[in-house]
Amino acid sequence: MAKGDKNVEMITSRDVDFAQWYTDVVKKAGLVEYSSVKGCVILLPYGYAIWEMIKTELDARFKAVGNENVYFPMFIPESLLQREKDHIEGFAPEVAWVTHGGDEELEERLCIRPTSEVLFCEYFANAIQSHRDLPKKFNQWCSVVRWEKSTRPFLRTREFMWQEGHTAHATAEEADAFTLMMLHLYADFAENYLALPVLRGRKTEKEKFAGAKETLTIESMMHDGKALQTATSHNFGSDFAKAFDITYTDKENKLQHIHQTSWGLSTRLIGGIIMAHGDDNGLVLPPKIAPIQVVIIPIASHKEGVLDKAYELENTLSRHFRVKLDVSDRTPGWKYAEYEMKGVPIRLEIGPKDIEKGQCVLVLRDNGEKIVASLDNLVEEVQMRLYTIHKAIYEKARKNRENRTNTAFSIDELREKLDTAAGFVKAMWCGERTCEDAVKEQATATSRLMPFVSENIGDTCFVCGKPSDTLVVWGRAY
Amino acid sequence: MAKGDKNVEMITSRDVDFAQWYTDVVKKAGLVEYSSVKGCVILLPYGYAIWEMIKTELDARFKAVGNENVYFPMFIPESLLQREKDHIEGFAPEVAWVTHGGDEELEERLCIRPTSEVLFCEYFANAIQSHRDLPKKFNQWCSVVRWEKSTRPFLRTREFMWQEGHTAHATAEEADAFTLMMLHLYADFAENYLALPVLRGRKTEKEKFAGAKETLTIESMMHDGKALQTATSHNFGSDFAKAFDITYTDKENKLQHIHQTSWGLSTRLIGGIIMAHGDDNGLVLPPKIAPIQVVIIPIASHKEGVLDKAYELENTLSRHFRVKLDVSDRTPGWKYAEYEMKGVPIRLEIGPKDIEKGQCVLVLRDNGEKIVASLDNLVEEVQMRLYTIHKAIYEKARKNRENRTNTAFSIDELREKLDTAAGFVKAMWCGERTCEDAVKEQATATSRLMPFVSENIGDTCFVCGKPSDTLVVWGRAY
Repeated sequence: MAKGDKNVEMITSRDVDFAQWYTDVVKKAGLVEYSSVKGCVILLPYGYAIWEMIKTELDARFKAVGNENVYFPMFIPESLLQREKDHIEGFAPEVAWVTHGGDEELEERLCIRPTSEVLFCEYFANAIQSHRDLPKKFNQWCSVVRWEKSTRPFLRTREFMWQEGHTAHATAEEADAFTLMMLHLYADFAENYLALPVLRGRKTEKEKFAGAKETLTIESMMHDGKALQTATSHNFGSDFAKAFDITYTDKENKLQHIHQTSWGLSTRLIGGIIMAHGDDNGLVLPPKIAPIQVVIIPIASHKEGVLDKAYELENTLSRHFRVKLDVSDRTPGWKYAEYEMKGVPIRLEIGPKDIEKGQCVLVLRDNGEKIVASLDNLVEEVQMRLYTIHKAIYEKARKNRENRTNTAFSIDELREKLDTAAGFVKAMWCGERTCEDAVKEQATATSRLMPFVSENIGDTCFVCGKPSDTLVVWGRAY
Repeated sequence: MAKGDKNVEMITSRDVDFAQWYTDVVKKAGLVEYSSVKGCVILLPYGYAIWEMIKTELDARFKAVGNENVYFPMFIPESLLQREKDHIEGFAPEVAWVTHGGDEELEERLCIRPTSEVLFCEYFANAIQSHRDLPKKFNQWCSVVRWEKSTRPFLRTREFMWQEGHTAHATAEEADAFTLMMLHLYADFAENYLALPVLRGRKTEKEKFAGAKETLTIESMMHDGKALQTATSHNFGSDFAKAFDITYTDKENKLQHIHQTSWGLSTRLIGGIIMAHGDDNGLVLPPKIAPIQVVIIPIASHKEGVLDKAYELENTLSRHFRVKLDVSDRTPGWKYAEYEMKGVPIRLEIGPKDIEKGQCVLVLRDNGEKIVASLDNLVEEVQMRLYTIHKAIYEKARKNRENRTNTAFSIDELREKLDTAAGFVKAMWCGERTCEDAVKEQATATSRLMPFVSENIGDTCFVCGKPSDTLVVWGRAY
């Protein structure tokens, strides 16, 4: 991938220009490349490998709670998309339309799925008749298309990879519980696998998914204080079921509408990992999803025994970790910078003197700490260090969120706090759309969520002053 | 999935109407469902699970020979598609065109990838400069779109799932060797994983991939004697490299064009598995890719101890195999028919008398054989039976091919043989396109391949009578 020493040139500092730092990192770490297809990017091997790690773990977790994988067509006939009013209003402005197949104009144009609720509804309407056909818990891994104006790798591209789960349940209680369970599944994955602390809660009416009764969300904070919606879980109640006439006969032989959920997570998450954990030397990858967990760099590798020992360590460690041994003719300095850029959690240096002493040097990516480690219990040492790196970067991200979370009791105060230093701002809200619109207009901030675990920091809406018992976390978001 | 007892209704016999048998099986086994999107089908959990099995195994084999996964955009700008003349001529008539994004008409229309050579070429042209950047071995798992007129699940749909590998090499020799290695990788996978015997060879000029210098293919024969192209591996030489100006500087600092390959395999393969192995009771799945390898059916499950023992067996066998225990209130007879339809290799029946005797009954899907098996060494017994089923269905398919392979020394003879009973026909061919066209026109047969291991069944072309040393296998194909 590397050409000359370009990859290890300095990148922009985060504090100088966070957006430029981000662009530098995704390119120099070899995650993505631009193509001549406007608004789309290429996921290169290193970037795609991170997505594969995410997929493999999440897929196992989905299946463990009874979800089954399927694949539905990428096309949606225009008439089908229009069946649910709120849904079409939410998505029609940003879909791509196929109008011709070969030389022939289509009788009805097809959009490329921006999301697949309507296709699953159509299937459910045909496939579900009795309570014995329920529940259905489907998931698909695919790409979707939304015709966005601006492009930012992982965060905003016209085509992006994601998974979308779609389930059908007999009762409202079951759908409620499933929506919540999937959100907690995402939250646990984000925190315990990606070291990404998240807030859990509900979206307001204004911010919920087009057509949903309720949208649950996990929100994380990036290094620069801006919010990233990390995953969402939607409860549709029976709205889609009514629009698509999806019914079943219950045990008393009465006709009932089904209750539905959908839930999704996309490659945006990779953008979140980059922006939450990265530093001025490049990526800092959470150990559990790092495609390379340990990179071995031989020092003075022309000296007798060095390469032999490096291969031996590769062999030993590979049984437990994802390991790369770099025996290329690049200088050690080049290699240090390269694998720092790529966010490899542990660098292992081994040279003639180390071998003499039966040791090696481990350098931890998150804080640069150098540890002299005995070769005798290296597997245990590496295991322990990967664990502590996970804990440390989680804690660093959590502290950043804590330091950047404030309260506000007026729109002016909220705007001022966000202008000084972006972050989350907690404020009480009456529940009225007009107040929420006012915050957007006067402070360019959106409601991120109403946390499940609320606080009572006041009794009145910070916009209109009416009584309020609802805390909202506000912020500026990617 | 099942509603009432519909799933176990009789299906059409293979000998009465093979096409109808096929349609019955894919629906009643729960592999696919039609949707309102014309020409596209839904892959349901059982069908998608088979694709996942194929993906997991092939992906590991690809990576073992140095291929890396990537993801390229699904769109191709019209001007980019037109860069290689033969390629555009091959694909333009059957691509889907996106003309609008939201309400706006696009400046340049985009096709949805029918295959991605041109996108990879564009990337290679930018990313490759020095011999140090080579080789590049990329693969992607995705769907592609070809605007076909007719629809047949797995065999011909407008959107279908596949993988496409794209590699760039410094020398012609390396590209030649890699093209061949990937073909053998596919062949080994087909034979040793899917129990699908294949012929290995080269396509003629007429039948090769649009833009390729050479196309290698594996061809298998279905139960009805028709051919299925199972996977292909293409050698592009430097033709695309010249059209896209993809060069590198070699070790002597001279500018050279790269040499490229591509290779692919799709969900058509699932159609092949169905048609090669299936019988009048439904699917017969190769044990290595069967989503359920052993189904446990408790007999007289209300009797004391039966369910306990069934759960115990599930627990024991699940550590080694993919197992399903069906404790639903369906009758055993319904369950037998259901899992036969689904092609589950082994049915395990366990009832009160079996338990008394410390045994169970294994019923083999391929030949209906019933085996009384001791519970003492059940894991070994099942392991052995899965192995022998694999061997047996491979051998049955190979015998079918052998019995249906003939020779011909004139077009009339070839036509007559194919009209009597479809199959492969070997005949010597001079290499001229006109003779190949004549076979197509007069016998509606195509050249399937020129086998790597040739035979000399004559010295002259069976069409024109000119000298020939090339054996071609002809047939009618899906």
